Amino acid sequence: MSKEVIEEGQTHHHGKDYVDPPPAPLLDMAELTKWSFYRALIAEFIATLLFLYVTVATVIGHKKLNVVNQCDGVGILGIAWAFGGMIFVLVYCTAGISGGHINPAVTFGLFLARKVSLIRAVAYIIARSLGAICGVGFVKAFMKHDYNMGGGGGNFVAPGYNKGTALGAEIIGTFVLVYTVFSATDPKRSARDSHVPVLAPLPIGFAVFMVHLATIPITGTGINPARSFGAAVIINRKNIWDDQWIFWVGPMVGAMAAAIYHQFVLRAGAVKALGSFRSNPSN
Amino acid sequence: MSKEVIEEGQTHHHGKDYVDPPPAPLLDMAELTKWSFYRALIAEFIATLLFLYVTVATVIGHKKLNVVNQCDGVGILGIAWAFGGMIFVLVYCTAGISGGHINPAVTFGLFLARKVSLIRAVAYIIARSLGAICGVGFVKAFMKHDYNMGGGGGNFVAPGYNKGTALGAEIIGTFVLVYTVFSATDPKRSARDSHVPVLAPLPIGFAVFMVHLATIPITGTGINPARSFGAAVIINRKNIWDDQWIFWVGPMVGAMAAAIYHQFVLRAGAVKALGSFRSNPSN
Amino acid sequence: MSKEVIEEGQTHHHGKDYVDPPPAPLLDMAELTKWSFYRALIAEFIATLLFLYVTVATVIGHKKLNVVNQCDGVGILGIAWAFGGMIFVLVYCTAGISGGHINPAVTFGLFLARKVSLIRAVAYIIARSLGAICGVGFVKAFMKHDYNMGGGGGNFVAPGYNKGTALGAEIIGTFVLVYTVFSATDPKRSARDSHVPVLAPLPIGFAVFMVHLATIPITGTGINPARSFGAAVIINRKNIWDDQWIFWVGPMVGAMAAAIYHQFVLRAGAVKALGSFRSNPSN
Amino acid sequence: MSKEVIEEGQTHHHGKDYVDPPPAPLLDMAELTKWSFYRALIAEFIATLLFLYVTVATVIGHKKLNVVNQCDGVGILGIAWAFGGMIFVLVYCTAGISGGHINPAVTFGLFLARKVSLIRAVAYIIARSLGAICGVGFVKAFMKHDYNMGGGGGNFVAPGYNKGTALGAEIIGTFVLVYTVFSATDPKRSARDSHVPVLAPLPIGFAVFMVHLATIPITGTGINPARSFGAAVIINRKNIWDDQWIFWVGPMVGAMAAAIYHQFVLRAGAVKALGSFRSNPSN
Repeated sequence: MSKEVIEEGQTHHHGKDYVDPPPAPLLDMAELTKWSFYRALIAEFIATLLFLYVTVATVIGHKKLNVVNQCDGVGILGIAWAFGGMIFVLVYCTAGISGGHINPAVTFGLFLARKVSLIRAVAYIIARSLGAICGVGFVKAFMKHDYNMGGGGGNFVAPGYNKGTALGAEIIGTFVLVYTVFSATDPKRSARDSHVPVLAPLPIGFAVFMVHLATIPITGTGINPARSFGAAVIINRKNIWDDQWIFWVGPMVGAMAAAIYHQFVLRAGAVKALGSFRSNPSN
Repeated sequence: MSKEVIEEGQTHHHGKDYVDPPPAPLLDMAELTKWSFYRALIAEFIATLLFLYVTVATVIGHKKLNVVNQCDGVGILGIAWAFGGMIFVLVYCTAGISGGHINPAVTFGLFLARKVSLIRAVAYIIARSLGAICGVGFVKAFMKHDYNMGGGGGNFVAPGYNKGTALGAEIIGTFVLVYTVFSATDPKRSARDSHVPVLAPLPIGFAVFMVHLATIPITGTGINPARSFGAAVIINRKNIWDDQWIFWVGPMVGAMAAAIYHQFVLRAGAVKALGSFRSNPSN
Repeated sequence: MSKEVIEEGQTHHHGKDYVDPPPAPLLDMAELTKWSFYRALIAEFIATLLFLYVTVATVIGHKKLNVVNQCDGVGILGIAWAFGGMIFVLVYCTAGISGGHINPAVTFGLFLARKVSLIRAVAYIIARSLGAICGVGFVKAFMKHDYNMGGGGGNFVAPGYNKGTALGAEIIGTFVLVYTVFSATDPKRSARDSHVPVLAPLPIGFAVFMVHLATIPITGTGINPARSFGAAVIINRKNIWDDQWIFWVGPMVGAMAAAIYHQFVLRAGAVKALGSFRSNPSN
Repeated sequence: MSKEVIEEGQTHHHGKDYVDPPPAPLLDMAELTKWSFYRALIAEFIATLLFLYVTVATVIGHKKLNVVNQCDGVGILGIAWAFGGMIFVLVYCTAGISGGHINPAVTFGLFLARKVSLIRAVAYIIARSLGAICGVGFVKAFMKHDYNMGGGGGNFVAPGYNKGTALGAEIIGTFVLVYTVFSATDPKRSARDSHVPVLAPLPIGFAVFMVHLATIPITGTGINPARSFGAAVIINRKNIWDDQWIFWVGPMVGAMAAAIYHQFVLRAGAVKALGSFRSNPSN
């Protein structure tokens, strides 16, 4: 058990130590032989399933009640809370098991920063896409009539906005989220500010909540390709599929921008790598 | 006093140590001789009373104001906050006294994981059912006219949904809650992630908040048999009693699923039990 | 400085040590000679002023906007957030200076538990009443027209409820708050659960938020005699003064019940007092 | 690296040590030679950009949806959450890099308390003003039609209020915020109360949320000159520019009042400075 802890530490990005972990290898075949790798995939599958079940059910329930009485649903504010609150809960629950991304864009950003191996990144994204499909599937099975009426919780460009705007909104929205994730998991900051490691899941959830407040009127807010993809598979309408690329390209570009900003501006990557060797004993 | 602390540690599931506590005995008659056992029952009784008083009063107040003016009540969002927020406050207040479940389904899940003895589980469930009845009773006494008009805050299957859907929604909703409770009280995780023990009551409260956002339109959201039972006793209408089984079977099945998921997948029960003996000295 | 810290420790109820502080003296004339005593009075005066300014301005602003458009105000949910959120912020800010009660009922409960001296309790209540009057005075000065139209944010028994119900609602509501305060400041619990001292101001704020969700439709929610008194002085209408006693008697009874519950049930006062002497060395 | 940490400690105001840092110099030319100074400017620029992008987009989206259906937008409650929540997230993310003010009034208050040098204060204010202009610029670029229709998120005195009221509301609102910032970053309190350093970004965000609930109906709520200025530059209408001085003078006066209150009342500046020398060894 103590051996496993040490091995996991190699790719673990929740810094509880004062030194940066070494970069994750691109291809680490040894991961495939460990139970902890498959356990992490299961955890991401279940977390994404629960995420989409709760959030899409909230969206559909809101639309159902609003037809009867304009003020009866939880409102867009309630929908934004559902997305942000579930991310808070699920990051809290899965952080120690799988890293708790629950979002392919977050994994992509951490992969670019060499905090997750390529194999793990690809496996996580597949596990989540399947989880998202199952989660939305449950909502459709439970609320069939309302689901079809309510548009199914899919992401698309709202009337009055063009695709460039939607792409821009997804890029900045994902930047906010991935920037927060990097800040929350930075080993140097965790060692210096006591609020960083303790609060971590809360600002990540709030970042998702905030971005939904701002961009639900534009795209319904993706910033999570697994969420957009799972909804698209279950709805399976042409207009949803036509816009689908926006909800993969936008989040990936936003995550890349956040990774570059964090590694090369805030942490000043190369300099830090050298510095961290020198300061290990005293830091 | 220090002796009592050690004795309580046997059945205490808020891991503050790095080693797993031994499984709770099925029948521990010695518990019945301790003041701390009866104190815990009183704490659960009072907490469930306060929980149902505040939440059902919020529901009735919302319905009263909405009759006059469609937008005047706190809304479903406010009701969801009442349930989630009270669980946050009450788990915070009672965690050190009784474990702070305030929910028979949570106790059932922890009993299956051998973290609570059978005697304690049964006594807690009885104390809570009485507390819930008293809590709803206060609301009826205070707001009689509005209480009868507003449906009394009972759980039932909403028109347009069938009982299978309601059962499924209760199962998944309780799974979300009990999964969060297990994550928050896992001794291994608490030792490794600083946010786990410190934030614990907050994500548990948020899990309840989230599930209410998603399933109030379907069943009013039970995920807590004491809550559903207390409301049913005070309302005492046939349609509420007819659906009552859903709000016991659903949460119990959901809690069982979460216990199995946590113990056999995330913690990999058997393997861990062995491992924890080996790693005690170094872990 | 270090001497002052030790002296303050005598009456300080935020337990950061594992032993209970000795009971506060009833009359401690030495307090009157210390700057820290007057500083605490100033802090309570300013905090109560800010509390009433922000919350009553929110109430008046909500009512103003709702006249134009039924959905435009922050809603009762927003008003409940204003009360709970301000208590969270102000407890956070003043806890280390004055204990951070900002509420005569809380002080009364802590006085009964011998955690505050009589002199300090009386002085705090006077400072807060003045602060509350000034806070509501600012709102009236800023929003005169809307203030008079909107009823001024005073507490009174809503039409359809009798005074007994209002009194009961104030008692239980204050019980929820003061029970949370006792749980958050219990030295024994702080030593055992890491979430207790760290989160403390948050559940106290949430308790206020929750009680407002439940009882705004009944009394507007007092649970704080300074808040009800300050609003009554500025409004100065007969119906507000007629109900004023409810908002002093109710909170005081509720606080007394919480003090008794915490000291004689949860902490089992007498037994504990003995026990804490025995366990000082090891606990 | 460890050397940089020590150097930064000179001007760092997030007290993690038990002794007060020495006052920041008025003019510290050496700052201009450090990468950490420019990194902090970039971080403030990006944070203010993201702050205004998310919050103004929320305002515009709310107004757009409310035209179609009075209850469809996120509401004033949602707008208040956007401002408060973003401050929580951004203070969390930037506290370790730049101090995380994201607000010229906060910097002004900390400058008066000698916690930030003059050079740093001026440079921060310029970086933020540019960031704010860019953030609102993105919203205008993305939502052009709705942006012009919705008033652009600028601050001005609402009809029915005079300029004196608006100025007063800005002064008290900023006082609430800056008082919270001082409380959250006070080295003496951080050392004594475990909740102070850990929760810090959360009550700062809540203070912003609360003030918005109270004063959106009066001025739209500035309490942040960069926010008001950025919106004014992009809207560029006469009535917005005419009121602009209120949103600089008000916040600066409020910040000054909070600095005086904290340094000369709560911390009793001069006395403390002496005391801290005497108590260094034991405190």
